[in-house]
Order: sequence, then C-alpha cells, then structure tokens
Amino acid sequence: MINFRNDYSEGALPEVLQALTDTNLEATCGYGMDDYCARAADIVRSRFACPTADVHLMVGGTITNRTAISAFLRPWQAAIAVTSAHICQHETGAIEAGGHKILHAAAPDGKLTPDMVRRIMREHHNGHDEHMVQPKLVYISDATELGTIYTKAELTALRAVCDEYGLYLYLDGARLAPALVAESNDLRPEDFAQLCDAFYIGGTKNGLLFGEALVIVNDMLKPDFRHIIKQCGGMFAKGRLLGVQFCAYFEHDLWLSAARHAVLAAQRIARACKQAGYPLLADSPTNQIFPIVSNEKKAELAETFIFEENAPVDETHTAIRFVTSWATKDADVDALVNAL
Amino acid sequence: MINFRNDYSEGALPEVLQALTDTNLEATCGYGMDDYCARAADIVRSRFACPTADVHLMVGGTITNRTAISAFLRPWQAAIAVTSAHICQHETGAIEAGGHKILHAAAPDGKLTPDMVRRIMREHHNGHDEHMVQPKLVYISDATELGTIYTKAELTALRAVCDEYGLYLYLDGARLAPALVAESNDLRPEDFAQLCDAFYIGGTKNGLLFGEALVIVNDMLKPDFRHIIKQCGGMFAKGRLLGVQFCAYFEHDLWLSAARHAVLAAQRIARACKQAGYPLLADSPTNQIFPIVSNEKKAELAETFIFEENAPVDETHTAIRFVTSWATKDADVDALVNAL
Amino acid sequence: MINFRNDYSEGALPEVLQALTDTNLEATCGYGMDDYCARAADIVRSRFACPTADVHLMVGGTITNRTAISAFLRPWQAAIAVTSAHICQHETGAIEAGGHKILHAAAPDGKLTPDMVRRIMREHHNGHDEHMVQPKLVYISDATELGTIYTKAELTALRAVCDEYGLYLYLDGARLAPALVAESNDLRPEDFAQLCDAFYIGGTKNGLLFGEALVIVNDMLKPDFRHIIKQCGGMFAKGRLLGVQFCAYFEHDLWLSAARHAVLAAQRIARACKQAGYPLLADSPTNQIFPIVSNEKKAELAETFIFEENAPVDETHTAIRFVTSWATKDADVDALVNAL
Amino acid sequence: MINFRNDYSEGALPEVLQALTDTNLEATCGYGMDDYCARAADIVRSRFACPTADVHLMVGGTITNRTAISAFLRPWQAAIAVTSAHICQHETGAIEAGGHKILHAAAPDGKLTPDMVRRIMREHHNGHDEHMVQPKLVYISDATELGTIYTKAELTALRAVCDEYGLYLYLDGARLAPALVAESNDLRPEDFAQLCDAFYIGGTKNGLLFGEALVIVNDMLKPDFRHIIKQCGGMFAKGRLLGVQFCAYFEHDLWLSAARHAVLAAQRIARACKQAGYPLLADSPTNQIFPIVSNEKKAELAETFIFEENAPVDETHTAIRFVTSWATKDADVDALVNAL
Repeated sequence: MINFRNDYSEGALPEVLQALTDTNLEATCGYGMDDYCARAADIVRSRFACPTADVHLMVGGTITNRTAISAFLRPWQAAIAVTSAHICQHETGAIEAGGHKILHAAAPDGKLTPDMVRRIMREHHNGHDEHMVQPKLVYISDATELGTIYTKAELTALRAVCDEYGLYLYLDGARLAPALVAESNDLRPEDFAQLCDAFYIGGTKNGLLFGEALVIVNDMLKPDFRHIIKQCGGMFAKGRLLGVQFCAYFEHDLWLSAARHAVLAAQRIARACKQAGYPLLADSPTNQIFPIVSNEKKAELAETFIFEENAPVDETHTAIRFVTSWATKDADVDALVNAL
Repeated sequence: MINFRNDYSEGALPEVLQALTDTNLEATCGYGMDDYCARAADIVRSRFACPTADVHLMVGGTITNRTAISAFLRPWQAAIAVTSAHICQHETGAIEAGGHKILHAAAPDGKLTPDMVRRIMREHHNGHDEHMVQPKLVYISDATELGTIYTKAELTALRAVCDEYGLYLYLDGARLAPALVAESNDLRPEDFAQLCDAFYIGGTKNGLLFGEALVIVNDMLKPDFRHIIKQCGGMFAKGRLLGVQFCAYFEHDLWLSAARHAVLAAQRIARACKQAGYPLLADSPTNQIFPIVSNEKKAELAETFIFEENAPVDETHTAIRFVTSWATKDADVDALVNAL
Repeated sequence: MINFRNDYSEGALPEVLQALTDTNLEATCGYGMDDYCARAADIVRSRFACPTADVHLMVGGTITNRTAISAFLRPWQAAIAVTSAHICQHETGAIEAGGHKILHAAAPDGKLTPDMVRRIMREHHNGHDEHMVQPKLVYISDATELGTIYTKAELTALRAVCDEYGLYLYLDGARLAPALVAESNDLRPEDFAQLCDAFYIGGTKNGLLFGEALVIVNDMLKPDFRHIIKQCGGMFAKGRLLGVQFCAYFEHDLWLSAARHAVLAAQRIARACKQAGYPLLADSPTNQIFPIVSNEKKAELAETFIFEENAPVDETHTAIRFVTSWATKDADVDALVNAL
Repeated sequence: MINFRNDYSEGALPEVLQALTDTNLEATCGYGMDDYCARAADIVRSRFACPTADVHLMVGGTITNRTAISAFLRPWQAAIAVTSAHICQHETGAIEAGGHKILHAAAPDGKLTPDMVRRIMREHHNGHDEHMVQPKLVYISDATELGTIYTKAELTALRAVCDEYGLYLYLDGARLAPALVAESNDLRPEDFAQLCDAFYIGGTKNGLLFGEALVIVNDMLKPDFRHIIKQCGGMFAKGRLLGVQFCAYFEHDLWLSAARHAVLAAQRIARACKQAGYPLLADSPTNQIFPIVSNEKKAELAETFIFEENAPVDETHTAIRFVTSWATKDADVDALVNAL
C-alpha cells in the first residue's frame, strides 16, 4: 500500500534525528530552560522579525491551541473561527473544555473573511450584551484545513477588522511552511509577526518528531504564560528536545525545503486530478489535495493507496484527501498520478 | 560542573534512541493506532499480569495525572493525596484547573496511610455531605517525592481502605522502576495491577525521551478514555514514537537495569552522607537522596555540583537533593562521595 | 408606556406572595431540606405521574441548565440543540464554561427534529471518533424560544432517536405551562415524565418570584445531584421559599390558570397581527408573538409600547416580540390590538 | 423545639417583606437593570463611602464567591484562605470547579494573618515558580466562620501584605452586619471599601429573603462583570427583588438594628456559657457562639434545642454552635440560658 494518509506518518527529517542523536548524552536544564531552546527562540525572533516576541516551544497542535486560547481569553470570552477549523471539529471540544465557546461561520474554502467576523460581532452586539459570550479572539489557520492559503491582502483585512473590534488575531500554523512555499503565496514570515497577536509555526507535520513554536507578539498576552503551559500539561520535561529539533529545522531553511518537497508532490497530484477531470473540493496550493471522485473510483484507488475520505459530496461521489510530506517518494506520486 | 539535578537531564538510553532511528522512515498510522503501540501495550499487560487492562501511552506525567483524574472523577469529587504530592505542589494547579479539589494530609515521609484517608473521609462525612466535596480517588506515588517506597503490606492496606469507602486507588509511577529495584522493595509489577484501579509506568525519568504508560485496570474507568486524552491535548500525532520507545524499554528488562544503575549510584551517595554525619530528610532506597547540610556545606558543594534545594530545615541548615539516573557516571559519584 | 417586554416584569401571583407572607416567620431547615420542599416535590411527582423521580427546586433557568448539563455529561460529551436555543444564545456560554460544546442545527421554527439529530450523530461518527466531541444529550425547550410547541408525535420521535443513539433527552420548560395550555397542544404533564430523561417546570416566567422545578426521571442521572447544585452555587439557603411557592403554584392548578391568562392575551394579539396583515415569524400558540413589521410601524408602536426586537428581517422590516404574562391587563391588550 | 440552628431559618424582616408586597405588581426591567437596583447600589456606595465602586446584587454567598473569584483570577492563579474558610470547607469545591486552587493555613480563631500570607508566598516563590500556582487573591470573612472579627489594625496589616505582594484582598461579608455591631468592633463601613479590592455585604443571614451586595472597588476588577454573573447562573431574572430588599435593608439602618438584635441575644448566651463554666471554642463577639460541652450535656440540650455540632474536641467533649438572628425570641434565649 502506498501512503497518502497524512504528513505525520514518518519520524523525523534525517538532519533533525541526527541533531537529537548528536546531543543525546548532554545534560541540560529541564522544561525548556536550556540553551537549545533559547537559541531556537532567537532564531524564530530573527527569522520572523519580531525581536521582542516570546517564543514557547510546545509539543503538539491541540495543546498549543488550548493553552494559548485559555491564556488569552477571560472566562466569558469566545473565539471566532470557520466551521471547518481544527479547534471546531477535531480537538474533541478542547477549547470548550477550557471554558470557551467557539462562534463559527461556514466557509466553503476554509478561510475566514472580515464579513464573517462583522456578522458575528453584530449578532453579539459587539460584545456588549451580557447575556451572550463576548467574542474576543479570531482563530485562523494557514494553510487551512482545506489546504487553501491567505493572501497578504486578506490577512491584512482580518487584522483591520480585529483592530476595529478589539479582537486578538491568532493563527494556527500547523502547516505554515507549506503555505509559505506555495506558488501563489505572497506572505512572508515577518508578515505573520506583524499582523497577528500570536501564531505558531508547525513542526510535527513538516518533519519534526514533534514540536510547534508558539510566537506571542502582543505584550498583553505574554505574562505568566509558562504557568499555564505547565498547568495544561504541556511543559515538556526534556524540553531541549524541542530546542534541538527547531535549531536543526531552521538550519539552511530545512523547514522550507522540506515543505517544498511536499508541496511539489501534492501539486503534481492536483494537476493529474484536473487532467483526469476530477473536480477539486478546494483550490489548494499546498500539500493537501481534495479530489471529488465517484465511489467506484474511490474503491479502486483504495486497493493501492491509503488516503482519507473528507466527506460525501452526493449519493455517488466523495471528496477524498491526498496528503504529501517531506517523506513522500517520487515513485509513489508517479503511481498515484498513473492511477488517477 | 557535575550534574545531580534530576533524572531527565539527558536524552534517551542508547537502545531507545537506536530503536527510534531504526524505525524513523516507516510510515504508520498516527495517534497511537499503530502496531508499535499495540505491541507495547501487550508487553505491559503481560509484564504486569493484567490481561484485560487498557494501556495508553502518554507524553508526560502532569498531563497523565490531569487526564486520568479528570476522566475518573465527576465534577463534585475530590482526590486525596499527601501534601508533598506532585499533583499538590508541582503541577501549577492542573487538577484544580480540571475542576477537582485535592484534599491533602501532611506526611513526613511522603507516604499516605489508611489513617490519613480515614480522617479525611470522616471530615467529609464519608462523602455524604453535599456542602463538601466528595472524596473519591486516592492518589499516591511510588517512589514518592521523597524517594521513599511503599511495602506490599502498606499498599494492600490502602487498597483495603479504598474498598471500605468506595475510592479509586491511582498510583503515579513516574519513578516506578527505581522503586521496583530498590533493595527493600517487596512489590512486584503484578501487585500494582492487582491493587490499583489505575497506575502509570514512568519512562521520562528513566531513560526515554518522553513517555509514560498509563494502565487502567478497573473496567469502570475505561470507556471513552481516548476522547479525553485528545481533549486534554495529550494525543500524540506521531504516537508510534511512544510505542517504539516502550518496546525497547521493556526489551531485556532495560527499564529495570537502567533504574538499577541509578539506584546503586544514589545509594552510594546515601551511605557517604550517613558516614559523613549528614542526616537524611527521608530514608530513600531509590534514586533521590536528601541530605541535610549546613548552609556553608551547601555553598561549598554548589561550587562543583548541580543539585536542587528541597527546603530550609532551620536557620542554618538546608535539605538538598541529589538525583541519579541511568546516565550518571561512576566518576561523578566518586567525586561527590569524596566531597561529602 | 404599556409593557409587553417579557413575562417576568412583575413580582409574584398574589396567591404565591400570600403563601410566602403566611409562612414568613416559621423556622425551617435550610437548603431545601424542609417540609415545604418535600411537599412540592411530592406534588410534582404526582402531577407528572413519575413517582420515583427526583425533584430539585432551583432558583433560575440558566443555573438549572448549567447544573443539569454539567451533572449529566462527562467532560468529552456534548449537547445537541437548535441554534436559537437559550443555552446556545443567551446564557453567556454557561454550558461551555462548564466544559461542554453545544452542537447546533438551524431550525426556522425553533424546534429540533430527529433528522437534525441524525445528521449531527453522523457527522460525529455516532460518538466513536475520539477526535470529536461525543454527542450525548439532546436539549429542547417547550415552548421554544419562538413560542412554538412540540406535538406528542414529535416528542415521541425525538425520544426514539435518543434511544437509537443512547442520548439523554433534556427539556427546558421555562415556559412549560404556556405550552401545556396552548390550544393546539396534545402533550399532557405525564408525557414529559415518560418521554424525557429530565426536564424542568418553569416558575419564574409564570408568576413565581423565582423558581424552576427540575425533575430527574432517569435513575442514572440522580446520584449526588445536590452536591453539584451546591458546587454550581444554586443551593438556596432559605430553600423553603421555593417549596412554599411551588406548593401555592400547583394549588387549584394556579400554574395553568396563570398561563392560560397569558396565552389568551397573546393569541388576541396574534389574531390582530394577522388581521392587520403582519406576517408572524413563527406560528406561536403560546404567550410570545413575533410579528414582522415595517421599521416605521416599529417606531410608531415603540412610542406607546415596550417590546423587544427579535431580529431584522430585511432592510426595512423587523421581527418584534410581544410577550404576555399572568399579569397582563386586558386593557393593555386592547390598546395594542387597536394600535396594530 | 427551640431553634438556634442558624440565622437563615426564617423568611424576611417584616419591613423587607412589606416592601416586596408593596412593589409586587410594578413592571420593571429584568436582570437588575431597574431603578430599585440602581437606588440600592447608590445607597451602598454612599453608606460605604466608595462613590466609584461597582455594586452587584447577587442571590447567595456561594455563587457570589465563585463568580467573583472566577472573574478576578486568571487560570493559573490561586486564592489564599484559612483552612476553616467557607470557600475551603462548605462550598463543595466551587472555587476549584471554577479552576482555582485554594492555598490554606490553619487558624485556630478563624482569622488570617499577614504571617500566614507571607509563608504561603514564600513557599510559592512569590508567584514566580511556574510549576506552582500563583497566589493572587486573599480571601477573608468578617465575621469569620467562628464568629470572630478583624480589628482595623489587623485588616490594615492584611492590606499592607497584599500590597507588598500584589494580591487582591476580597472579603466575604455574609455576616458583615453582625461584625459591624459587635461591641469590640472598630471597623466602620468605609474602612472595608478603603482596605479591600472587593467585598460583599450579606443579606441572607441577616433578614433578607435572599441577597448579597457585592462591591467592587478596584477598577481592574470591574470590566465585564455582568457577563460572568450571567455565565455562572447568578443573574436573577426578577432582579428588582434584590433592589427592593436592599433598599428596605438600609432604610433607617435596618440591617444594623437587625444584626444588633441577633448579637445581643448571642452575647447573653456567651455569658451564660462562661458562667456555667463551658469554655468557648473561639471568642466570638457576634451572633455565633461555640461552647465546648460534655457529650452528656450535648445530648441533654438536644432534647429541647436545635443546634449544630461543630467538631468533636476530645473523646468526651464536643464544640456545639448556637446561632441567633434578627428573629430570635428573647424567651428562647431565656430558655437556653436557663438550660446551660
């Protein structure tokens, strides 16, 4: 079977594993207080041009989202997101378990728009109705759950609407590297630091064993953050494993070359889908492709390839998902392209 | 500087790191649904003689405790623990953040006794006073925060008092391996499965990069547990990293030989303390030693050795802590023994 | 100004206030352990034909919903409701603050259907996908937020779908009395006890100073409920005030005659709206009427009458809300009917 | 049987009930947005000399404590209290259910001292240890659970220690009126507003049907408070019932005369205890008296009088509790004095 299930099926990029091996017997402080974590944080601040940001290296995406949103909001405040958002659908209610409602808007392409934010704000009387939650944080992801990406104009417009209503803008970058290397992308690393109050740079889905780098730009959101990391269970005892991995990740722009490999493979699949006449659920320039195929074709493909079903489209057709990664082999892409 | 700060200063046992390297490029299911996790769970069930137990491989201790206690208790129920317990002191209120009070009793040697449980039950009218929390879970750790261990008689007596009051017995085994290999220990792995409703087998503090194996023996506590793992942010994307590590950990009883190395080193230090006339805060047969030294001696030792202060004992004396691990070098122990 | 704002603008029905006055100087146990509360509970059990139900007299609707749902669900479980549900819109995220997501479906008439439940269950893989919340409780209200009511066939069908998926059926009866006396109603009190796992009988919106009677029919949901009432802050010190009021409320079916007064008044307004050619947002047979009027008409009415705006319908029309109560005066209804 | 069980056994002071009766048929806004609530808030601000304070009229003590502490603290922050504090013992873990640990110190007389605060701060590294909760709020009550009261010097010293460490000082005044009229009291109403960040003035235990007036003095603690009142389920639909009661409560200093009646009765009992040779558990100048009696005497008294047991003192003696109120009859006190 040939695997296009997801981008976290394998272990780590060889350079990352090597760095862990090289440093294995060093003794360092625990809990991320070591020099590797400090260096990784410096690299992030430099690479994203946010010299005063706080950088916290976290183990995974769900705990990063839960910790950040719990820290940023007061009990009566809510997050705004698209209905297909990871926090809305696939975190088993982690945000609500932390006490916060998510107000959501349906977005066919997975992207939140200022109009959606405005409508939600209006429905909640701009946060001034004490019988309703007070929207306070906008959650977006780039790339989105459907592989689509924001343009600089779109992200700037979201920033503006956030400023208009006094909302925080938080960006889930589990797949930020694939977004950055997408052909149509016009956002640079420093734009995220400039436009968001906080965001995280994904590692798990792009070649780290595990790890996401949370960047807090807004000074208001910084105090005592390590307390809540610990409370939420996200403080990693051997924290330097995160530092070591992220140092290797940014060395020679490994994070971008790894993502580029994944995106190129995915775009070959996308072109093959289009040529074969399969419509795509969303116009994804990143490493997830969602062709709509007949249920017969789906069954046929499933004999050779591992992939996920996204959702039934009608009685006889289904949107399926192919995901590529740093570890995807060209020959496997060839096989899929031929089979389509 | 020679490091006796803790038992998670280094990376992984060489065998564990090798297993990760060997399997690095394999593609598996995510989230612990892979064969390595299944095999590790089988090994745990076999080694602890609990063939029907559920085994969940978790990333770290705090998130294991928080997830388990949140899953096991209803909102109005409370945990019972000693005041020095990890959940009481060093998890930034994670249990309370999950909604549960911890009722605690002071225990000079770090060990909970049936009398302490009985007193707390009496003060809470055996759980029948609706104006008070309802004690429902007894939390203990073996080894304790002071390095002491439970005897089989003591653990059996706690089980009995739990049965008397309908309480769950949950054991934090972050340092279970050091406890098992301690000279005075008379508890075997299967005893924990037989006497506890749930317990976890620590890996992080005994040579894994990270990982704790939670064992749920009581059928009542099993349903939907993976839901709450995900909700608490503890579901590891590349879950097989846990499976691979635990398989290596149990191979040829590596977990016990690693712990034995640590404990032998610690006991050399303990003997040296006694010979040098330093009283020990607790009689620890495991890998943490707490000598009480004058503040001058403390300062002198701190020039060469890294260690933590436990607590001031009086104006001029302090209890300090030396911790050894699988990675502790004999020469470093020699140096410390000479310096005492 | 003539008030049609809501059904809790005045104090209590004279009979209720008299009962409080008559018993004012009696000394009783606190916290609802008195004879009045016991008698009220007996009356409820008898009137609703549920001899083994637990009855808890609560202060208000939001705390009843929050307490009940917190007690009934485990942390990873969610409630299902219509988007316009009170718990969804107007309780400031109280359910989420208790840790639970609400999965909602848009319902133009405010009524949940089995198809909505089935779709949500399907989207959540019938509760078996650990990356998603597990739907476990269906929340409905009768009358709904739009004044509509369930038929016996509809409620029976909801019960069936709950049984099919193992869901609890919980009914918010803040306006149960108006529903029961509606002309088109075919549900009897005992039907609620037979078809729901738990429900509450509203008092605040039908002539009590305050008070809702929560009825727990399902044995699984009964244990330790008073613990969580206290924990949520809902245990009333002078609990007998609730017992005294509810005893008076059920005496000579005062609760129904009070509701009948309100409903008759509202239906006069509804007829006047129809005759005047104002469409109604929903076909409400109870004590809330939602005519759609031009914004000029709205402004004109607002000079004499107090009412709420429900929502804009288009650029030039708004749905407004008239609510009647036990205290509504015929002359005030006359005035409104003439003004329409 | 003659009742000394507690101070909330009866309904309301006649003046209070009369005010409710007089206003019963008036129609007002709900949720405390009416003129009575506004007037009551003005009276509180004037009487306590805090013209810019926010005043929220709440239904009961537990929900006031839970709401206030949830609003004031961030998730990783903790409250400091004496072990016998109401929030510690008798609110079924409401504070922990809201996510916050309570750090407690044993206080034989029920009063927190600056030294206790300092010790807890020291143990928590002044809030700078991310592995521990961050103490942020000092909770005290006046009168305490043992009937004792703070002097102005003591309260001023607590304020100073709070300022030293950046802690909020929150005072639970469920029995503030009895404290104010105690013979040894030297605190005036305005002192509470000057020395506390927030406090509440109890009504339930001093002659209201229900009601506590929460006064928030510190500007930092004011924003969005009504949101969290609603979320916690504490927003009373017919809020004006609270306003009407509190207006009557402060009219002609009814709150103080009611408390004076209770305190005088209690002090007669205290003197009788001393004369009869029964030691008192605490030196209470307010309306709760805790004599230590032999278990035979306890049984003898229980034939005629209703009272609570506080705690066993030794094998043969018990501390019992007599509580008086605005409704206590002189003849009943005579009977008790004679029986002692």
